[in-house]
Formats: sequence, structure tokens, C-alpha cells
Amino acid sequence: MDINQIYAPVLEDLNKVKDALKSISRIDNEWLSEQLSYVVGESGKGIRPALTLLSGKSYKYNLPHLLPMAVSVELMHTATLVHDDAIDKALTRRGHATINSIWGNEIAILMGDYLFAKAGEYVADTQTPRVIKLFSQTLGTISSGEINQFRGAFKLDHSHENYFHRIYSKTASLFSLATQSGAILSQAPEESVTIMKQYGDDLGISFQIVDDILDFTSTEEAMGKPVGSDLIQGTLTLPAMLLMERYPNDNPVEMVFKTRDKKNVADAIEKVRNSTIIKDCYKIASEYCNKACRNLKLLPKTTSRQALFDLADFVLKQGT
Amino acid sequence: MDINQIYAPVLEDLNKVKDALKSISRIDNEWLSEQLSYVVGESGKGIRPALTLLSGKSYKYNLPHLLPMAVSVELMHTATLVHDDAIDKALTRRGHATINSIWGNEIAILMGDYLFAKAGEYVADTQTPRVIKLFSQTLGTISSGEINQFRGAFKLDHSHENYFHRIYSKTASLFSLATQSGAILSQAPEESVTIMKQYGDDLGISFQIVDDILDFTSTEEAMGKPVGSDLIQGTLTLPAMLLMERYPNDNPVEMVFKTRDKKNVADAIEKVRNSTIIKDCYKIASEYCNKACRNLKLLPKTTSRQALFDLADFVLKQGT
Repeated sequence: MDINQIYAPVLEDLNKVKDALKSISRIDNEWLSEQLSYVVGESGKGIRPALTLLSGKSYKYNLPHLLPMAVSVELMHTATLVHDDAIDKALTRRGHATINSIWGNEIAILMGDYLFAKAGEYVADTQTPRVIKLFSQTLGTISSGEINQFRGAFKLDHSHENYFHRIYSKTASLFSLATQSGAILSQAPEESVTIMKQYGDDLGISFQIVDDILDFTSTEEAMGKPVGSDLIQGTLTLPAMLLMERYPNDNPVEMVFKTRDKKNVADAIEKVRNSTIIKDCYKIASEYCNKACRNLKLLPKTTSRQALFDLADFVLKQGT
Repeated sequence: MDINQIYAPVLEDLNKVKDALKSISRIDNEWLSEQLSYVVGESGKGIRPALTLLSGKSYKYNLPHLLPMAVSVELMHTATLVHDDAIDKALTRRGHATINSIWGNEIAILMGDYLFAKAGEYVADTQTPRVIKLFSQTLGTISSGEINQFRGAFKLDHSHENYFHRIYSKTASLFSLATQSGAILSQAPEESVTIMKQYGDDLGISFQIVDDILDFTSTEEAMGKPVGSDLIQGTLTLPAMLLMERYPNDNPVEMVFKTRDKKNVADAIEKVRNSTIIKDCYKIASEYCNKACRNLKLLPKTTSRQALFDLADFVLKQGT
């Protein structure tokens, strides 16, 4: 199923989100304007703004508040990517050179801040202190999660619990903001807000597990960044953890973290691909998708509810 | 006049702001908690939160909203300093080692983001979309201003207009947020909000001019960072611009920007000190202070209004 088919109930409004994102670069400062259109132009699948709109669609669909919320969620995502790339010294993202690689870390820091500010302006336009507070709390969760990830880099003693905590912070918290805010801004009943929160939490976990799998199974061309980036940056993901557990005496991850040698990265990738690890990781991702959807049937039976089911399927099918 | 005497009408509440700032480090993450108490503990004179409280004091003084606003303004200030120091590779701030110098740029980026998030949480507690929007717009002004400053570093062709625009963005915009939000949250009439905005704008300009003077006239001990930092970082301030205009043929600033040699920095400082430049800069700062206060007498005659007059005097007397 094509992603735009899934987005159908809100596709028109999702285009308005894209227009609003483009409008951010229409400012008086020529240099900054060019930069902004570069950053905001490199958008991905738009899953986060789609979640906000779809989550609101079953209730009092309040576009004048949902639209700025959806824009805000996407901008916060973009801002965190700009800062993450600066921290990771990443060279490419979505197939294009990163801000830090073109203009340096200093501009990447300030560009990220500028995008946070714009995200803040849009969320203020929801006129709803509850979602504004959630927005800020989510940024706190993401940045403290990134601090933990950075401090834990190149360490081998991460528990599975630690991994799930980490991916909740860096990915699921924003999915959860997207879905919750959609429900809140559309005056959904509190039980539905809770269901949408659970959906966002668990779909986000599943999404990140799949992303972590793709770092082993995909190609540079498909991902827009080098395969094995997580290993190179010392980030211990689920496939890497399972690999360590299978090779306790000849630990390929330890070799990568110690030597940071590309040959060892290729060896670790090869070992993961030639094992059941990928299948096992997809199984865990699938469990989280099921968990995400477990209470969706309690929501009104609408096309947007169906889209949320389909989106969970779509997330799982990435790279398979 | 001692600063705490000036703050008298709101001194008790200013202590509550300090307590709230301290409470930010009381979190479950031991390492981050230590770091946060280090950053938030290094507070300065608290002029920005004082402005918020004093600006609200003449009206319906709404502490449950003014307190989070004052905390938020100070946190945004701290967050921008953390990012600025990372960008400038500064080693000391307020006499203490900077975050970037202790923990590296990566942690400085993420710590700044975390502090922005906390600032956002506090501003959400004002429950007032208008000031929340102003807060975000101000962050946008500050970060785009910093981008312009960074791109203009080590260039000699800045106009006076460009200088005032730059210091408005980096300093006065936040002073203006502090005063405006205080008035708005205390339901001041719109004319008073405008007067408080003008006061914040012009006091902020004056404050930054004096700060730029001190970089030439003060000592490392008094400032908590090396004398001549602006020149070393390639930032063209008002005293440096006047120096260039006085020595068109033997331009000491050009020498510093070309060689980045400490001897040339010392020479430029010496030349500024032995001229009327300092006096001339104070005169301009003083004009902005007068401008800041020009409409204050239209506000209700209260002890907090007097404090705003006294604060303008205090700003001017820094370092004299």
C-alpha cells in the first residue's frame, strides 16, 4: 500500500502542512532564507504531521489548530535532526549533505535553535496551553534522551530496558506528542486521548526498531546515509545487542567499538544478515505494532481509524 | 545604589524565581542533575526576571503567571549562553569553566536544547498564548541574530545601523520579552504594554552597549571572562567601530582581525582606553536609557515604576 493512499483521509491538509513548511523560508534575510528552504525542503514521509491530522480526524476536526500543530511537530523533528547531525558529525541525511557538513557546526547549532523557535511559534498558534506544555516536555525528553545516548556511546553494557527507554525518548515521545495533540485539539474524550497516546508510544518504538534494522539491511542509496551508521557512531541498537548475545566470545560489536574500523563494521553487518536476528527484531517490532493498535477498535469507526491501522502495517513493512 | 535595593518591590518573589531555577536540577538522572545545578547555579544579576516582575507590579500582579514567565525568561537566556559559548569556543563564563570546555560541544548543544525545553514548559504555565508566541518569536530573533553575527565575524564593513540591529536581536529582544510579558500577564492596558516594550527595547540596547564597553575597560576578574573577548571572536562592537573611524590609516581592529594576535588586541584596548571613545559610547548608552524611560512617567506612580527608573541608572553605572 502506498503511503499517500494511507494518508488519504487527510492528504489535502497534509499538503497544506507542506506549504506552511515551505513558507518558513520566505523571510527577509536572503542567506538564511536559502538555508531554510534547503533544510525544510528535505522533508521525509511526513509521518509525524500525518499522525496529528489522522488522530484528530475522528473527532471535532479543528484544522485551524491542527494545522499549526502538525507543522510544529515536523519542525521540532527537523530541528532535532539538525542538532543530531552536528553532534554525530554526519555528512549526509536523506541523501543530501547535512547543514553541519556544508556550513559548519556553529550554523547547525543556530539553525536548529531557529527551527525550535519556529516550532514554538506554530504550537503557540494552537492557543492550547495543554499541548504547548506537552510540546515542551517532549523536547525535554528528546534532549535528555540524546544526552544519555551520547554518554552511553561506545559502551557495551546496555540492557534491553535501557534500549527501549532510549528509543522511547528519541523517537516515540515525538510520535506520542503528534497523536495526543491531534486528539486533544479535536476535543476527543480523555479515554481516546489515552488510546492515541498508547498508539503513538508503541508505534514510535516499532518505527525506531525498524529504523535500527534498516541500518543493517538497507543500502546507502535507499537510506540516504551510510549503512552501519549507528555502529560507527557507537550507538548500540537492538540488532547489535542481539548480535553480541549470539557471539559472546567473538563479539563483533566490541571489535567495531574498539577499532572503529570499517572492515569490522562490514563484518558485523554480514553476521547480522546471516542470522535470524533481523527476523527476531521484526518480530519484536511487530509486537509493538500490535500493542499500538490494541485499543484502536474502541475509537469511532472512521476512515482515519483505518488509516492508523494501515500505518502500523506500513511501518513494519519498511525494508522488507 | 545596590541592585537588591532596586529590586526591593519584588525581591521576595525574585527569590522564588531563584528557588524554581534551582528545582530544575532535581531530576532522576544523577549526571544530568549535577550538570544542571552547575549551569543554573551560575546565575548573574537576574535582571531579566526582575524586569518581568517589576513590569507586572503596577497592575494586577498575577504571581502564579508572572513567576513561571520570569523563570522562563532566565532559562532562555541561560540556554542561549550555553549555545553561544559552544559556538565561540569560550572557556570561561561568569568566572567558571563553560559547559563546552568541561563536557564538550555535543553536551553543550543538548544541554542548551534541554534548557530551551524547560523554558518552554515554564512559559506554557502562564496559560497565555500571546506571551507564549512572543517567547518563541524572541528565540527566533535571537538565533537569527546570532547567525548574522557569526556570518559577519572578522568583517570590517559593519554599519552603525547593522550594530544596533545586531544588539537588538541578541540582547534587547529578550529584555523586551521580559518587560512586555510582565505587563501582559498583569492585564496592563495596551498603552502600558507598548511603553514597557519600548522600555525593554531601549534598556536592552543600552545594556549591551555598556557590556561592549566593559569588554575594553574592565578586568578578567570583574567580568569572569578575558578582556577583549569580542575582538578575539571577531565581533565588531561600538567601541571597536569608533576606533576604526579614528584610525582610518592605522586600523588597530583590522590588525586584530587579520592576525588574531593578543599583542594587537592589547594595542586596540590601549588605544580605546586612551581616547574619548569610552565617554562617547557611554553617552550613546545614556541616550538609549533616557529613551527607555521617556514614557515611564505615563505609568501609575508606584515603587516598581521608580525601580525601572533606577534600573536604567544602574545599567549605565556598570563599570564606571
